[in-house]
Amino acid sequence: MDRIPILKVGDCLLVTIQVDMHDELAMSLQEDLTMQIAKHASRGVLIDISSLEIVDSFIGRMLANIAAMSRVLDAQTVVTGMQPAVAITLVELGMSLPGIRTALNVERGMELLREFIGRDAEAEDVDGAEE
Amino acid sequence: MDRIPILKVGDCLLVTIQVDMHDELAMSLQEDLTMQIAKHASRGVLIDISSLEIVDSFIGRMLANIAAMSRVLDAQTVVTGMQPAVAITLVELGMSLPGIRTALNVERGMELLREFIGRDAEAEDVDGAEE
Repeated sequence: MDRIPILKVGDCLLVTIQVDMHDELAMSLQEDLTMQIAKHASRGVLIDISSLEIVDSFIGRMLANIAAMSRVLDAQTVVTGMQPAVAITLVELGMSLPGIRTALNVERGMELLREFIGRDAEAEDVDGAEE
Repeated sequence: MDRIPILKVGDCLLVTIQVDMHDELAMSLQEDLTMQIAKHASRGVLIDISSLEIVDSFIGRMLANIAAMSRVLDAQTVVTGMQPAVAITLVELGMSLPGIRTALNVERGMELLREFIGRDAEAEDVDGAEE
């Protein structure tokens, strides 16, 4: 169990984080995820953290890094399933996860991603028409 | 990390098994899964085992139990992402996972579930028409 599985669902990639993250695992997740985005030309990444009871600055930074890397590769990232207690703690600690979009659950996250992907496609059409 | 998260995706529930299963975790997964099927009236269960490098008789029995429980609750189960080495070992050990449907990856598993759900719905329509 060295790597976190990445599931391809349509245009998007789905990752559920279930185990305690450590440096090596976070690095391999970032590497695998960027590889998979490039391989499948994925437009969205959905990260479910519903089983995490603690989100510390390390996890927060990892999520921000993944979101930034995905953005560079033209994919949107949504983090879903944050437990209420985690949200409270994050804000109390002054970590409001800037640059990371969140949704209540996977279904809403998927909807959000579809919206973003649709909007990007429209913007591209407009750009294309102008050329 | 006491419980394996169960994600609701449309009509189906999605579970990715990433950690070593032990008795208690298997029991709580079965319990959670049956609760979620009943709660959301789900028609399909998709279990991804792509990160499992070993599938022994305990895991095999757990998967068979989940499939049987889901069937009783009117939901179909598909196991996806089995590693080639796991498939070889299972057959060599004489465990061919009877009663468990498998698919190569989550996308194909979803397609398979949609087919089953569609077929069930058609069968119900016919039954309804005969009454």
